[in-house]
Amino acid sequence: MKKLLLQLDTDPVPSVFDQVVAYDSGVDHIISYGGVTPDKVENLVHGLMFTRGGKQLANSAIFLGGSHVSASQQLAEAVKKCFFGSVRVSVMLDPNGANTTAAALARKIVGNYDIRAKKAVILAGTGPVGQRCALYLLKEGASEVVLTSRHISRSMAVAKEMQSRYQARITPAESRSTEDTRALLENAHVAITCGPPAVSLLPQSVWSAALTLEIMADVNAVPPLGVEEMKVTDDGVERFGKRFYGAIAIGNFKMKIHRSSITSLFKSNDCLLDEITIYDIACKIDE
Amino acid sequence: MKKLLLQLDTDPVPSVFDQVVAYDSGVDHIISYGGVTPDKVENLVHGLMFTRGGKQLANSAIFLGGSHVSASQQLAEAVKKCFFGSVRVSVMLDPNGANTTAAALARKIVGNYDIRAKKAVILAGTGPVGQRCALYLLKEGASEVVLTSRHISRSMAVAKEMQSRYQARITPAESRSTEDTRALLENAHVAITCGPPAVSLLPQSVWSAALTLEIMADVNAVPPLGVEEMKVTDDGVERFGKRFYGAIAIGNFKMKIHRSSITSLFKSNDCLLDEITIYDIACKIDE
Amino acid sequence: MKKLLLQLDTDPVPSVFDQVVAYDSGVDHIISYGGVTPDKVENLVHGLMFTRGGKQLANSAIFLGGSHVSASQQLAEAVKKCFFGSVRVSVMLDPNGANTTAAALARKIVGNYDIRAKKAVILAGTGPVGQRCALYLLKEGASEVVLTSRHISRSMAVAKEMQSRYQARITPAESRSTEDTRALLENAHVAITCGPPAVSLLPQSVWSAALTLEIMADVNAVPPLGVEEMKVTDDGVERFGKRFYGAIAIGNFKMKIHRSSITSLFKSNDCLLDEITIYDIACKIDE
Repeated sequence: MKKLLLQLDTDPVPSVFDQVVAYDSGVDHIISYGGVTPDKVENLVHGLMFTRGGKQLANSAIFLGGSHVSASQQLAEAVKKCFFGSVRVSVMLDPNGANTTAAALARKIVGNYDIRAKKAVILAGTGPVGQRCALYLLKEGASEVVLTSRHISRSMAVAKEMQSRYQARITPAESRSTEDTRALLENAHVAITCGPPAVSLLPQSVWSAALTLEIMADVNAVPPLGVEEMKVTDDGVERFGKRFYGAIAIGNFKMKIHRSSITSLFKSNDCLLDEITIYDIACKIDE
Repeated sequence: MKKLLLQLDTDPVPSVFDQVVAYDSGVDHIISYGGVTPDKVENLVHGLMFTRGGKQLANSAIFLGGSHVSASQQLAEAVKKCFFGSVRVSVMLDPNGANTTAAALARKIVGNYDIRAKKAVILAGTGPVGQRCALYLLKEGASEVVLTSRHISRSMAVAKEMQSRYQARITPAESRSTEDTRALLENAHVAITCGPPAVSLLPQSVWSAALTLEIMADVNAVPPLGVEEMKVTDDGVERFGKRFYGAIAIGNFKMKIHRSSITSLFKSNDCLLDEITIYDIACKIDE
Repeated sequence: MKKLLLQLDTDPVPSVFDQVVAYDSGVDHIISYGGVTPDKVENLVHGLMFTRGGKQLANSAIFLGGSHVSASQQLAEAVKKCFFGSVRVSVMLDPNGANTTAAALARKIVGNYDIRAKKAVILAGTGPVGQRCALYLLKEGASEVVLTSRHISRSMAVAKEMQSRYQARITPAESRSTEDTRALLENAHVAITCGPPAVSLLPQSVWSAALTLEIMADVNAVPPLGVEEMKVTDDGVERFGKRFYGAIAIGNFKMKIHRSSITSLFKSNDCLLDEITIYDIACKIDE
């Protein structure tokens, strides 16, 4: 029986990226829709639920994507409401690749480093990747995770939301200047930059002065990179006594996690891969 | 050569259900379009007609679907106008699953029951499934088929249309109350409920008082069901001296008919599966 | 690894024709988008570029189609801008089938005929097929290629554009009457009709009086054909001392070129098939 993946994308044009990865993960056919809103979900999901029965439902699954994380999360809620009893299919939620990217980022750091009782600072970290990475580092035992924004109001709002959504306690902070960043990195062991492409966030003058700092990771692949002296292919390279993880090393591992997650969807008909469970999958993969 | 199915759906979002069934029927690839109107058909159908030649055209076929039966029938007319001589492909018309569902419903009843010279009443039967079921029961020799609506004008209009379209003579009737239904079931042998989901149409007090009644069937899968005491999985179960056919038993057989119809499309390049010929296919399948 | 073709079509509804040909050329899956404009290209192309690495990129390719040749050419420019270094995929540009049709038309003529130092007249030749055919005949050594339009301003504009785009020197001409055509065919060896369907352009009275004329070809498959006494299936048939090539013979060869081009896309990740290189592929195929 063919493995069918229903791609529901909140963007008007459904992602090519997600389709290629799905094919490369063993999916036989993708049924793809763009511009999906929660009100359109029921009929589409019923089409998957009511065409195959019992254990055969493990061959049908749903991928929820799109550029806007919250829009895709709303789709996920609408999808879950369609299910009843054992009449359900597996679902993966990875809007904008945020879950798989954050899992790859966190695993690159903790895979070879004991983060327990350590402090991490995620610069420009209030977006989906930064938030999820914070969650994973706390889960792995970090003593403190600071999430910075250019506006303290933004990082405080995120801290509140993470507390209520995940019972995760992050430290909100504001960073508008090199001086701010320098102060935030005091006593920090890990620094992560989650800023937009081509924005430098962490100059060498700052990180070289941060004496406790051991690890830096950056998800920006477009020069100038987020961390000065970082190379996109850095995969744990030691330089000036600190370890570097660049965007391509993280991205390659993200692809592994993404593919492994898709494969997992078809092992049962009741798997839900979201920001929590995708990390569990990542933990089982060698980076 | 790959078996290609061109799905033309009149709904803005093409049906997932129809795509999954097509893949499960051996189709290799589906080329899917939603929001199709008759004026858009020519270019799409020519793309299928002019890419493969001679006997190879048996590997290309068209499925016409959508929620609105008449809109899909208009597509069918537009598609047929594109063909000439032997340059044509097979076509299946099953808007809203009406043809396959009605065929399954009728076959469940007549498969194990001699309906010749018997009277059937189809409650809330003026929709596509009810109309087609009436047609099939008359074809199988029923002496009378009554189609009810809440408005006699509606059932009379349908009776007139069925006369002109199929030369089928049904008895129009109005049923607005339990009393109406009780009167209509007098001397009836078969009662079928084709109402909307979660609407009870036939209380036990009525059917248990209908002494000639032998068989009841219901296409509503959402409680309360159309017939009181019906179970969705009833597949000819006898209860209180009468035989019951529920929505899931009918639905499972509908799936078989749907799949078998899709498979038939690829046996030649000139097969036309519509409300008449899909029933012929259903007759060859064991329910 | 599956061969994936990204179909970007400038028409609102992406071409069925192009999809069927792609499947028949060994493509495993098509990711299809209609209504594509240059501003939407980047995200789609990046989805193809960043999901597979190194030599694996040869399994991903792009097909650019649509009814309007210039719109598709603009897509091609936008696509090329997305690539950098070796991070690229193969691309085929064949809007409205113009490149493959023109290549088939030219090859039918020059495959069995030495066109060097000969004169060709392409009637109603200012459209994409006529222009490209002119280019190919000049490339093969024709001494003169005349392109006619009903308006000399149109053919002069095309002559100017072909000079600047391809450094190709064609002779612009106006043909509004049988008399015009008769005069234009003086000393011509080849006459080609590229008019719209069902428009007769070359009456027998004219071509039979053209004493030097040896070959006629016509791309119009709908009667009345472009050349009087032509048959759509003529494939080099001699009649009245002249050789005839009809639309179906040319169309069948066009299909071979189209399929062979698609197959070529997957031999490397840096192939660009456009109006120039598709002709090179056509030269390697037996008509």
